[in-house]
Amino acid sequence: MNFLETRIQTDGVVKAGNVLKVDSFLNHQIDISLIREMAYEWQRRFNGKKITKILTIEASGIALASIVAGIYNVPLLFAKKSKTINLDGELYHAEVESFTHKTTSNIVVSKKFLTSDDYVLIIDDFLANGCALKGLISLCDQAGAIVSGIGIAIEKGFQDGGKLIRDLGYQLESLAIIEAMDDKTGKITFRKN
Amino acid sequence: MNFLETRIQTDGVVKAGNVLKVDSFLNHQIDISLIREMAYEWQRRFNGKKITKILTIEASGIALASIVAGIYNVPLLFAKKSKTINLDGELYHAEVESFTHKTTSNIVVSKKFLTSDDYVLIIDDFLANGCALKGLISLCDQAGAIVSGIGIAIEKGFQDGGKLIRDLGYQLESLAIIEAMDDKTGKITFRKN
Repeated sequence: MNFLETRIQTDGVVKAGNVLKVDSFLNHQIDISLIREMAYEWQRRFNGKKITKILTIEASGIALASIVAGIYNVPLLFAKKSKTINLDGELYHAEVESFTHKTTSNIVVSKKFLTSDDYVLIIDDFLANGCALKGLISLCDQAGAIVSGIGIAIEKGFQDGGKLIRDLGYQLESLAIIEAMDDKTGKITFRKN
Repeated sequence: MNFLETRIQTDGVVKAGNVLKVDSFLNHQIDISLIREMAYEWQRRFNGKKITKILTIEASGIALASIVAGIYNVPLLFAKKSKTINLDGELYHAEVESFTHKTTSNIVVSKKFLTSDDYVLIIDDFLANGCALKGLISLCDQAGAIVSGIGIAIEKGFQDGGKLIRDLGYQLESLAIIEAMDDKTGKITFRKN
């Protein structure tokens, strides 16, 4: 197991319904030393890729993406969730479905900050069905920006988001891919690299 | 003017109704070099204070707070906005009024991650009427945690939040305090230190 898988096995809590709680170190309380190590691992995996901007989505991706942006020394841009579609043409927007909440929301970025000059590294904490990622990729496509890579902390390998994104040809680097979780025993099975 | 005031004067946009847009460098697209410089300035101003945890509120405070947590090498905790009050006793919650949106929302943190052992540095991007800050201070009080200091990027000095918080005895360090803004000329007047 790598350092993140070890931490997930130690401090993650498996709940019924394939829910993994990592709120002690990743998405409520955040262990900055851990995410710095994750950021360096992404830098290693995306070695040679041109990256001019880090893109994430509020809220829990922002901490991860900030540390990555600091290492690459490029600006961070975070997509905002918006209830209303702005009609004045200043924003790119994409629809994101939430299977958990059975809702559709809009995510937006200002057109000023994402352009055809940008080479984007997308960073987020979780990948399950891929809806949020598809939204972020759509924002880049609308801007004519290049998606240089996608870094995910934890991928739920038993859902189809990862396959979907890889089949589209993107370099998707998930630092931990979960194949199965058992809320009775707490056992987590990770995909072998 | 200090480095943040200079940046605000250069890249901030004053809109009608005392609205200051800093979305090109602080709360949508984020200049990590700038916020690293801000983090070092807070470290200088809070020199000698014991700090075991950084506390902020989602979403736009998270980037700032992540960089500060990295410099102090302590965990980051961000309060989440919640529509419902959790009744199982696992969370501290506080009510935060929004004058802008004329709504009251709840912010929550898990009791596991904020305790009477903690010495907390609260970080946020804006201070106006102080409602969000009062909510964060309340969370610390409920946990029995000590508030070692409060670091704010931009304080609207013409609103009463700053005076209110300082009168309560907290060390509040706002890196830029705006006394007046003119949306016709774009001129911003900062409080002299």
